[in-house]
Amino acid sequence: MARYQVILAYDGTEFYGFQRQAEGRRTVQGEVERALGQLGWSGSSMLAAGRTDAGVHATGQVAAFDLSWAHSADDLRNALNARLPADIAVRSAQPVPADFHPRYDALARRYRYRVYCEQIRDPLRERYAWRVWPPLSEPELHQAAQSLPGEWDFKAYGRATQPEGSTVRKVFDARWARDDRGLWFTIEANAFLYHMVRRIVYQQVQVGLGQVSPGQILEHLRGARQPVQGLAPPQGLVLDRVRYPPEES
Amino acid sequence: MARYQVILAYDGTEFYGFQRQAEGRRTVQGEVERALGQLGWSGSSMLAAGRTDAGVHATGQVAAFDLSWAHSADDLRNALNARLPADIAVRSAQPVPADFHPRYDALARRYRYRVYCEQIRDPLRERYAWRVWPPLSEPELHQAAQSLPGEWDFKAYGRATQPEGSTVRKVFDARWARDDRGLWFTIEANAFLYHMVRRIVYQQVQVGLGQVSPGQILEHLRGARQPVQGLAPPQGLVLDRVRYPPEES
Repeated sequence: MARYQVILAYDGTEFYGFQRQAEGRRTVQGEVERALGQLGWSGSSMLAAGRTDAGVHATGQVAAFDLSWAHSADDLRNALNARLPADIAVRSAQPVPADFHPRYDALARRYRYRVYCEQIRDPLRERYAWRVWPPLSEPELHQAAQSLPGEWDFKAYGRATQPEGSTVRKVFDARWARDDRGLWFTIEANAFLYHMVRRIVYQQVQVGLGQVSPGQILEHLRGARQPVQGLAPPQGLVLDRVRYPPEES
Repeated sequence: MARYQVILAYDGTEFYGFQRQAEGRRTVQGEVERALGQLGWSGSSMLAAGRTDAGVHATGQVAAFDLSWAHSADDLRNALNARLPADIAVRSAQPVPADFHPRYDALARRYRYRVYCEQIRDPLRERYAWRVWPPLSEPELHQAAQSLPGEWDFKAYGRATQPEGSTVRKVFDARWARDDRGLWFTIEANAFLYHMVRRIVYQQVQVGLGQVSPGQILEHLRGARQPVQGLAPPQGLVLDRVRYPPEES
């Protein structure tokens, strides 16, 4: 028996989120555990770095489990991919120390969010992006993103993972960029509150529309009591990367 | 009553192709005609530039129909988009001469095809691309594409649209390019035979894998009798643009 870490990619559209739920609700965790069961896994619950919401995608979710496996880690990756549906893939598998925990040991999570500004919906982008119209002001977006790095009490942006838990989080990086498919926002922090990324994106977009000033973001970050209103839709969001101390990744 | 031309975009995944079929089979034509019916259209069949196969996408399909419409063409576009499902969009609508025919009047059709070379499937690309492994040789691909422009008898690549119809087609342009999502192939011709683009792409990929030589493409173009084997899967293909004489577009 050894502990393995896997990096997972998935299209979240057809899942009720990552976390296993009642029978009949298709989840990423449920599908991966089913595939593991076919390889002899008998654990009660796989560990994961984060619980993405229904409709949210991933290219760098990290999970871990204990398994008796006589072959290589690449063989494990291939065996899982052969047993998983097309909307989930194991990008890599590797053995890790027996006490590795993908959530507690993570130093940082990075998400990206895709926005495109068109008057008419584009059916080939709708699955992975939020369409916004009128167009966003890019200088305003860049200024809005610059407010975010630092350690702040994000209580206006979400609730703590645990009851009575801290709502202080440290943002390492936040930026907007553009490519041929539109705009995308990247944010990396030590951890995120429930719905925090999607509330931040919604607020950023309001700044880009001229509905909210960059100064109002700072008021929220400095502890304004009233919660931030609005939630960007899930399909634009991708859990991109989880970082660990060098010896664990 | 006036004739209107619309440019359609759609995600072909959930359709049994473009052309209307028996009850119960969801098609792009069926959905657009249903939306038109809600605006008072009573025609028997909408006209279209081409019939894309099941699973094939479009960003530039062209259709036409006769309609009594008291408002602007932009209002017509918006009224259709409000009545169409999320996987179809009308990008533009405009009045055209009463004898405009989207298929007979077309000078050229352009398709693009997306390929990505990865050992492990990427769930966020699978819907719109063909995954190929091992990686393709890009110099070989460029050479393979260079064989195609010109007027050839494509009888090895598909069957004519009409029984006894000509299988001669003129390719104006064919090229491979690369971006951050992988490789894509663009081909523009006056018209295409049934399955011709997907057979060409399959053969191009075989050249990129070293399985077929660029010289064998020329043998087929010069009239070799045996049909080209293999068909690239539909989900990588997009009908990108249809060109008309200047006064009709």
